[in-house]
Amino acid sequence: VSTPPPPRKRARDRGVEIGLLPPGPTNTIVDVRGVRVGHATCWHDRAGSAARTGVTAIVPGEIGELFRAPLSAGTAVLNGAGELTGAIAIEEWGTLETPILLTGTPSVGRALDAAVDAVFAAAPEAGDGTEDVMIPVVGECDDSWLDDARARSVRVEDARSAIDAATADPPALGVVGAGTGMISFGCKAGIGSASRLVSALDATVGVLVLANFGELQRLTIAGRAVGRELARSGFTTVPDAPSGSCIVVVATDAPLDGHACTRLARRAGLGLARVGSVGHHGSGEITIAFSTGARAPRRTERPHASRSTVTGAWLDPLFAAVVEATEESVVDALATADTVTGHDGRTAPALPL
Amino acid sequence: VSTPPPPRKRARDRGVEIGLLPPGPTNTIVDVRGVRVGHATCWHDRAGSAARTGVTAIVPGEIGELFRAPLSAGTAVLNGAGELTGAIAIEEWGTLETPILLTGTPSVGRALDAAVDAVFAAAPEAGDGTEDVMIPVVGECDDSWLDDARARSVRVEDARSAIDAATADPPALGVVGAGTGMISFGCKAGIGSASRLVSALDATVGVLVLANFGELQRLTIAGRAVGRELARSGFTTVPDAPSGSCIVVVATDAPLDGHACTRLARRAGLGLARVGSVGHHGSGEITIAFSTGARAPRRTERPHASRSTVTGAWLDPLFAAVVEATEESVVDALATADTVTGHDGRTAPALPL
Amino acid sequence: VSTPPPPRKRARDRGVEIGLLPPGPTNTIVDVRGVRVGHATCWHDRAGSAARTGVTAIVPGEIGELFRAPLSAGTAVLNGAGELTGAIAIEEWGTLETPILLTGTPSVGRALDAAVDAVFAAAPEAGDGTEDVMIPVVGECDDSWLDDARARSVRVEDARSAIDAATADPPALGVVGAGTGMISFGCKAGIGSASRLVSALDATVGVLVLANFGELQRLTIAGRAVGRELARSGFTTVPDAPSGSCIVVVATDAPLDGHACTRLARRAGLGLARVGSVGHHGSGEITIAFSTGARAPRRTERPHASRSTVTGAWLDPLFAAVVEATEESVVDALATADTVTGHDGRTAPALPL
Amino acid sequence: VSTPPPPRKRARDRGVEIGLLPPGPTNTIVDVRGVRVGHATCWHDRAGSAARTGVTAIVPGEIGELFRAPLSAGTAVLNGAGELTGAIAIEEWGTLETPILLTGTPSVGRALDAAVDAVFAAAPEAGDGTEDVMIPVVGECDDSWLDDARARSVRVEDARSAIDAATADPPALGVVGAGTGMISFGCKAGIGSASRLVSALDATVGVLVLANFGELQRLTIAGRAVGRELARSGFTTVPDAPSGSCIVVVATDAPLDGHACTRLARRAGLGLARVGSVGHHGSGEITIAFSTGARAPRRTERPHASRSTVTGAWLDPLFAAVVEATEESVVDALATADTVTGHDGRTAPALPL
Repeated sequence: VSTPPPPRKRARDRGVEIGLLPPGPTNTIVDVRGVRVGHATCWHDRAGSAARTGVTAIVPGEIGELFRAPLSAGTAVLNGAGELTGAIAIEEWGTLETPILLTGTPSVGRALDAAVDAVFAAAPEAGDGTEDVMIPVVGECDDSWLDDARARSVRVEDARSAIDAATADPPALGVVGAGTGMISFGCKAGIGSASRLVSALDATVGVLVLANFGELQRLTIAGRAVGRELARSGFTTVPDAPSGSCIVVVATDAPLDGHACTRLARRAGLGLARVGSVGHHGSGEITIAFSTGARAPRRTERPHASRSTVTGAWLDPLFAAVVEATEESVVDALATADTVTGHDGRTAPALPL
Repeated sequence: VSTPPPPRKRARDRGVEIGLLPPGPTNTIVDVRGVRVGHATCWHDRAGSAARTGVTAIVPGEIGELFRAPLSAGTAVLNGAGELTGAIAIEEWGTLETPILLTGTPSVGRALDAAVDAVFAAAPEAGDGTEDVMIPVVGECDDSWLDDARARSVRVEDARSAIDAATADPPALGVVGAGTGMISFGCKAGIGSASRLVSALDATVGVLVLANFGELQRLTIAGRAVGRELARSGFTTVPDAPSGSCIVVVATDAPLDGHACTRLARRAGLGLARVGSVGHHGSGEITIAFSTGARAPRRTERPHASRSTVTGAWLDPLFAAVVEATEESVVDALATADTVTGHDGRTAPALPL
Repeated sequence: VSTPPPPRKRARDRGVEIGLLPPGPTNTIVDVRGVRVGHATCWHDRAGSAARTGVTAIVPGEIGELFRAPLSAGTAVLNGAGELTGAIAIEEWGTLETPILLTGTPSVGRALDAAVDAVFAAAPEAGDGTEDVMIPVVGECDDSWLDDARARSVRVEDARSAIDAATADPPALGVVGAGTGMISFGCKAGIGSASRLVSALDATVGVLVLANFGELQRLTIAGRAVGRELARSGFTTVPDAPSGSCIVVVATDAPLDGHACTRLARRAGLGLARVGSVGHHGSGEITIAFSTGARAPRRTERPHASRSTVTGAWLDPLFAAVVEATEESVVDALATADTVTGHDGRTAPALPL
Repeated sequence: VSTPPPPRKRARDRGVEIGLLPPGPTNTIVDVRGVRVGHATCWHDRAGSAARTGVTAIVPGEIGELFRAPLSAGTAVLNGAGELTGAIAIEEWGTLETPILLTGTPSVGRALDAAVDAVFAAAPEAGDGTEDVMIPVVGECDDSWLDDARARSVRVEDARSAIDAATADPPALGVVGAGTGMISFGCKAGIGSASRLVSALDATVGVLVLANFGELQRLTIAGRAVGRELARSGFTTVPDAPSGSCIVVVATDAPLDGHACTRLARRAGLGLARVGSVGHHGSGEITIAFSTGARAPRRTERPHASRSTVTGAWLDPLFAAVVEATEESVVDALATADTVTGHDGRTAPALPL
């Protein structure tokens, strides 16, 4: 019986340094206080069907509190051949009111279903006819090359498990949770993460990516044209797989309003570009950014609210942090993911580093 | 045992005439050839829990063909406190590749799940690792005032039933399918539909709405301030219910590219305005428009495609048709929906006409 | 020698009542304290060339102060066949830092040039190499049916005159300033204005429109299908003129952030819809909204700012006020504008009321 | 009397190779057949005032023909603290109908005015009351650190000269035209250009940038952290100058519709990211892309048009070409621009290479 490969060494542990800003203590998204991450990995081999998929949950704070006092949030789309449910509402209201789930494309509905359950469990007033209901946030990438997607292995229970498993410990990376079946630059990828400290604002920016995009030739690591070198050396990647995607989750504790979160989200694509994305037609490169430093109560007795937010050019180091942490997160996903053989005997090789 | 009330008379059968363009033969969305509609109504009364919800499916053509040769499509958001899954991909690619499902907010995941099943069943190549997977389109409104939303009555099977039930017959209207628990302008509403013929283009525009928005004072029917009159007369509406929404589905057989569909979608809000929408903060007024007259094969052997599309000022009568048919569809939803008593004894009265 | 016709009676003075909210003292945009309006009208008849054009300036406060501490602002596009310079920056930063000028399409550059002069004169630090420069806001409609547009009658000096002429008195309406050559619904139109009081927020919303859009058949006044009635009666409008547009300027003293201003701006189109807009392909229906109640200093010593803003459903009465005041402003432009004969003997008739 | 420094060697002539695709014959935007470029440089030193500014015109084809049969076009904004007039109309209609002018921020109005003149001269029917007028496209960056912006040295005549000077010869680069006073990464920059051949589509992509953005520390050339190295070596850049920007003009002869042009435009930011942009708050990083391979006649007798366009994943090599050519264009602007001393004795040093 096969099992998921353990994570390989992280990028920074291999000496890869990206950007100018220092990483946080764990160099992952949980460096942003209050952010928890949980995984559920679906991995099995049955006659004619291999499961190589799963769910990853990013839970920014206690779920009931999140519903009652949503966080500032925004989204951005580099290329939109993908899905991030809840994005329309986030753009209108500038708030995030549920956990964020990542999974394989056909499992979006089940992950969304589990998130509704979780919010209903945590907030008894949700959906009781006196309070608005909520629209959970689920992002996806297509893992149907390694996973037998038609078997639909992810169940609602798996998504619930990912939410329940969320802790503030540094998350498992690589071939785990939603990353189990993902491929980037023709190599095995999956979950990557990184963080940056912005001392001028006494703030942290954390990023977690579900990396499933890119072609080997364009892979650039810390400026080096690694992909071109590998291609020339005859390295064999995954053949013509279905189109990839990348969901980027950006967290910060800097107090930001929704529009500032949207602006942060737009910078994630710049980090993807530095690793080699050209925004392929078939790729869903979509970002959600949220601030744990700014809550907007769902109900207010008074018409005016006053909130602190980082303004003007003071945002620039946060923008830089997003670019750096996104770039490193993708490299981290490649660094940590080991070779996986999945459905139909298809094999995605680990990136040689 | 209670049952859903049968539809009341349609707006036009009551002598209400809206706009300048003539309606099609059935004055519903199925006047656009190839468009089918199906409903699944969830209605039951159990101890302490009443179900007043459901699912409505709009199926533009055969599902496998839709996957292989998607239709041109576009979306628009008047106020985004709602959800239309798939919107990000539709805006990027300009195509619709799955059925469109409408349901209550907490049921979005289950409807989406059923749509994945339906596409996998109809297109064996979908999700087999050689072909991209797809992101179904599900729109929602919040029916948690009449429906015991926390009981989560809509099952995946119900959504599948709505898809399976889709026919080219004029759809049931009012208190049915996704419309079962919806409220507009403080009155019972739900599903409404209308169509317009655009002779200059030999084209038809059809609209179907899931109407769940508005306050009585602003209700305007064919220009008449009906809501203000009713309010002055002491008519009692639903008290302060959770925020409403309106999903508008626009279909046309005029050949349009995706961008033109987006432009049509933006006009639906003008129809909502004429009935009395001011785009409430809590309302998700979201539109999807598609053209059955323009298909884009999923795979093309050659880099260039040549497609016929309506251009320039020739679009104007289509824009007008969308405005008129949307306005009439909302009135139709109010006209056909009869009084419903639901969860916790809450009653939404029919609009007196 | 011809002169511009004096304004006819305003809509409300003719007994036309639109909406539910009460108008402010002057029922114009200057009811929002601090907002000033000025016009420069270009009207002359020379051999083979008639000028029927001009410039209107909306100046929200003292110009130097506006540069140093911009107001919150946002924009919206219903149909984008037009121009509002500065819109990209307003959407990014959420602020307005210059006067707003309206004029005929070919004169945008000259109006913009005059606005740069005005800001340079009022703010010596602007453009001195230590402070960012600014991008003025100029909106336009096409008046080239009545005006000899190729003669380019508007000079930079005219635009400066409009700025200099700005006062807090109720503005002249109808055939004046930028409205001199404009046509709506086949009738002479131009500048219209209206305001609404929102008592729950102790706030005022003021709107000024440059109305140059619409076809007679769809003209609706306070719900009545006036245009259809006139068309049936044989009323002769302007023949097939070039495409129209409508620039809407929304002002409020309610404290709003930039995103809330954008949301207000999006509601202006709903007011246009109620008068009969279907968003013609050739029409530039574009809105700018700003709040005099929220300033963001250009430079901040500290990274965090705390600003009061109206939040959540408390925005709803402001949304309603925008819809109502926009609808009435367009009717007001038609009501006040009298018949004008212009270039080449072309005549735009006053709307019979 | 000082004069503008002649261009230094281009990036590729220095051995810098960027990307995987081959450049066209001149490795500039004029490799796209039909595209012409002209400059007008404003350079003078008077008592207390130095002019270091100008205008650059990109003219895609004959101006009258451009008005009568506009090209497909689209725009994108990475960070919107800047201006590109005409962008609203380009996004709505998907077409470009005038030359594109680049200049310093305060000169936008004058450049726009000159473009109106040029179109009126080339198309006698423009603005005659039978045909819509047009909205020229002018992009800007802030050159007020080297230029005495308050002196407003660019006259309408200069902008006309730039248009008149446009030829199909490889354009002058570096300190010329609109690039005269621009600064990037703390070094003198200005106009840069590059091109790429896409053999699979038998197409060329050309890019021209007006580069005025970035901080030295993040400058990356062909993957090498050149900026960090220079900063460590004590290289002295321009001190805290006003915020920068970058306008990117993308041309291709591949037949594209407007939406595809918009998608190309969105990739330019990825090229900027690879050189070191993080999309500063104060930066206007704005792109216009157009296709000389797809014209849409202004007037059509028939409602339907059929146009050939590159579709689906066939767009990917064009996306890659935009990323590569944008990255190289910025490096080219830095490579070719020599040291300039301007207003108030301020000096922007050439990038040591």
